[in-house]
Amino acid sequence: MGISSAVPCCSVWSRQTQLRWLTSFHRRILAQQSVTSALGTLQQGKLPGAPTRVVSVPWGVSPRGRRVLHAPSSSFQEVMLTSERYRVQRLPFSCVSDSDVAFFEHIMPGRVITNPEELKPFNVDWLKSVQGCSKLMLKPQTTAEVSQALRYCYERNLAVNPQGGNTGLVGGSVPVFDEIILSTVLMNRIISFDKVSGILVCQAGCILEKLNEYVEEQGFIMPLDLGAKGSCHIGGNVATNAGGLRLLRYGSLRGTVLGLEVVLADGSPLDCLASLRKDNTGYDLKQLFIGSEGTLGVITAVSILCPQKPKAVNLAFLGCQSFTKVLETFTTCRAMLGEILSAYEFMDEKCMELVERHLKLSSPVTGSPFYVLIETSGSNSTHDEEKLNNFVELAMTSGLMLWSLRERITEALTHDGYVYKYDISLPVGKLYDLVTDTRVRLGQSAKNVVGYGHLGDGNLHLNITAESYSHSLLDAIEPFVYEWTARYNGSISAEHGLGFKKKQFIQYSKPNEAVFLMQRFKAMLDPKGILNPYKTLPSSS
Amino acid sequence: MGISSAVPCCSVWSRQTQLRWLTSFHRRILAQQSVTSALGTLQQGKLPGAPTRVVSVPWGVSPRGRRVLHAPSSSFQEVMLTSERYRVQRLPFSCVSDSDVAFFEHIMPGRVITNPEELKPFNVDWLKSVQGCSKLMLKPQTTAEVSQALRYCYERNLAVNPQGGNTGLVGGSVPVFDEIILSTVLMNRIISFDKVSGILVCQAGCILEKLNEYVEEQGFIMPLDLGAKGSCHIGGNVATNAGGLRLLRYGSLRGTVLGLEVVLADGSPLDCLASLRKDNTGYDLKQLFIGSEGTLGVITAVSILCPQKPKAVNLAFLGCQSFTKVLETFTTCRAMLGEILSAYEFMDEKCMELVERHLKLSSPVTGSPFYVLIETSGSNSTHDEEKLNNFVELAMTSGLMLWSLRERITEALTHDGYVYKYDISLPVGKLYDLVTDTRVRLGQSAKNVVGYGHLGDGNLHLNITAESYSHSLLDAIEPFVYEWTARYNGSISAEHGLGFKKKQFIQYSKPNEAVFLMQRFKAMLDPKGILNPYKTLPSSS
Repeated sequence: MGISSAVPCCSVWSRQTQLRWLTSFHRRILAQQSVTSALGTLQQGKLPGAPTRVVSVPWGVSPRGRRVLHAPSSSFQEVMLTSERYRVQRLPFSCVSDSDVAFFEHIMPGRVITNPEELKPFNVDWLKSVQGCSKLMLKPQTTAEVSQALRYCYERNLAVNPQGGNTGLVGGSVPVFDEIILSTVLMNRIISFDKVSGILVCQAGCILEKLNEYVEEQGFIMPLDLGAKGSCHIGGNVATNAGGLRLLRYGSLRGTVLGLEVVLADGSPLDCLASLRKDNTGYDLKQLFIGSEGTLGVITAVSILCPQKPKAVNLAFLGCQSFTKVLETFTTCRAMLGEILSAYEFMDEKCMELVERHLKLSSPVTGSPFYVLIETSGSNSTHDEEKLNNFVELAMTSGLMLWSLRERITEALTHDGYVYKYDISLPVGKLYDLVTDTRVRLGQSAKNVVGYGHLGDGNLHLNITAESYSHSLLDAIEPFVYEWTARYNGSISAEHGLGFKKKQFIQYSKPNEAVFLMQRFKAMLDPKGILNPYKTLPSSS
Repeated sequence: MGISSAVPCCSVWSRQTQLRWLTSFHRRILAQQSVTSALGTLQQGKLPGAPTRVVSVPWGVSPRGRRVLHAPSSSFQEVMLTSERYRVQRLPFSCVSDSDVAFFEHIMPGRVITNPEELKPFNVDWLKSVQGCSKLMLKPQTTAEVSQALRYCYERNLAVNPQGGNTGLVGGSVPVFDEIILSTVLMNRIISFDKVSGILVCQAGCILEKLNEYVEEQGFIMPLDLGAKGSCHIGGNVATNAGGLRLLRYGSLRGTVLGLEVVLADGSPLDCLASLRKDNTGYDLKQLFIGSEGTLGVITAVSILCPQKPKAVNLAFLGCQSFTKVLETFTTCRAMLGEILSAYEFMDEKCMELVERHLKLSSPVTGSPFYVLIETSGSNSTHDEEKLNNFVELAMTSGLMLWSLRERITEALTHDGYVYKYDISLPVGKLYDLVTDTRVRLGQSAKNVVGYGHLGDGNLHLNITAESYSHSLLDAIEPFVYEWTARYNGSISAEHGLGFKKKQFIQYSKPNEAVFLMQRFKAMLDPKGILNPYKTLPSSS
């Protein structure tokens, strides 16, 4: 890496207020909490207590804009059919007939896909862990077309799988059997953007990264950011209530999404596309669709509040000697950085090993069992820019690199073999114990057991890799992980949703009465159950 | 006022980074936008361009903690019965019998109120605009008691009016006829507080101000703040999705409320009291109860995320020559203060006149048609405290005073006669035109037409006063105000809710399909319609 040649960080730090905060904070951490790192050790003779890499990232240049979710593997291995691997029974929906295809071809000519080769990537999830066998994909461009298509499917009792960028991790975005894939890929129009309020209204199929580039040109950013930004659709983000890297700073989509346009299962459109920060006229219907994973309606347009683009972004990367130190560092960090703290991500050394081995990314700090990536975003540019000065050139590269280390862990894991993925919320104090306990439990039967995640949100990504999928390993992991999580009142799906793979475990995080009520909502809004069947909720029978 | 003796602001300003921002920003405003004020004029010889009062408020001392919603009037005038003024038909609920009273006395001995004198204040709203004639109030202490009471009422077909602090402004918190008042006043226990995450779990009847004092001692604040904080209950805040003064900075309750415990109409408890920042396991049921005004269930406990207590709080009060200047100032202000901006409230001169006349509060800046109160909250205390220094003693008093000017407008208005209140969301550019147009339309038939509100949230409080209630004045105002709001895609209730008084106007802000869906939710969750009848939704027939 370009930046691993020693940079005169120390002298630059002494001239930068914001960075000085970080530096002095790290000094204290070093003293109190014995945070160490290889680089830190190298430098300690010259500057005791500066073990981290601290860099600034100019937003205008947007190095983070370049991050994308890379394809998990070039060697396209055959994926088992979901229905076979999980032994699922097809529900008695109608099968797509020639006259159905003709009808769809009539309402959206040239946008009806039936070629099996063309359909293949839309039948398999990004993780290559589940595969359906849909024979038909529709690409509507307008809400009216979605409405027409759904009304027809509802009458014909045809099951429908709404699909955005197909980057989901729990098998929610691909068919289980032959559901019709309703893709938002051509619904990618920006409807309006208000420069005073920062409110963006757009169609559901807009790609998150494109939206971010668009609003950045006007001095704003999207309130969410995730590794899949280069492919994921905003409609899919909302349907799955995606969390991601900016949640700590800008809150969840439940606060930033101001309005939705949705088409219900029977084809009736529901216009809740308000563009107001406050609106207390009746029940907030849109909330029911946020995070419902396409089972209650198809989101066709989104109104979302974008925060101002921060003028100064700084990153720090540090090593910690224990998870307790990671927690102590977080408390200190939050108290000292307050409102400018925009991310606090942790990774264990196993993650870093995989990222280095499979992606050839090297960590600027090594030799610690834990690593933390801290990002700050501030508005006082006059103050900061003057002080950050000499660092900017370097930062552009290294800032990108630092975030890649964290964001490409998912990708590195897919190169390591079959991945059992768990996305858990826990009280932060217990967060890493689950990784340790799982490692002990699985012993040699797993290849790697790693933990990383958004510590600031109490969110752990526990990942277990093995050479290939095995039922016996799965049995050793589940329900162990879910029972462990339930014991500490955690959530078995913090941000990934339930999709196909987790739906039968909902009771570990929700009481029976709540699940029953969800089933009643589903039955009320989609009485035939045609929308994204086999997903999210256990069947009510 | 103590602070109106000239303080050496200028010299202090020059030593305070944060205040200097404000000052230099105001200078620019003055130059570009001709913001003026009496005080500014006085000082301009010495310091051109410093027309505002800027003060710092230490959070530890918490002057804002003392703000309460004062009783609107000492002369208790007789309030017309809602059923008579609005000519409502009582629905065929059962009437409370002696055996009902005996049952309730059995399950919550000594906490069943039937004395008409004692019941009186709970039958009348804070504005003294609506009055019911309930003959029974219950004061449960536990969720189990709420559950028992509701199960009984549901079986007996007895209507129930859930009530928190009774500070609502749309007639949602008092009975229309003889509904049983179910008060949360004795459900005031704090269940837990996590100092690492800032997550508070408490019963629904805790008073907002008490909660704020409690979490402040641990270094946090409540994410919402409103004038009624001294009386309102957190359960009522959540049930009405209260907005208030901190929304601009900390977002709405839809993001900060992490979990709810609710008792449904038939008495079944629903435990969604999670204490996790992220949880994507199924539909987010709690959202349906947030803002449902007690019509779908009774909130019995709340889990809420508290932000860190800011270490430095500054206030600025300035006059503007036009509403356009108010808007321009907002844009500049938001760009320069970014993440530390915590409130941007505007008031017109009519508001200030009423506050001065009725409450004897005097504005530190006079002679402008518009005034703006800006609050910043920051974390860099080492930096700020060192610099703010000499100002602190003064700030405690004046900070309180500045906020009183804004917060006690509602109270001042009640002293001015009968108040027609409107709480509107609009695109900020159109916000004040509604006040001007209403003033022109009403002419001499209104006593005062005033506008103020949370400009940062696009939220206008339009208030019209008259000597007494009159049908003809009401007809001149409505539906004019609602039609005007609908024309610009605004909301006819930004934060107050619909309650009794606005329910028939929901269609100005929501399409028919949305209202129909809300009615289906109501029918599903409360098939007999016993919870807060006559409120929020128009009747479905």
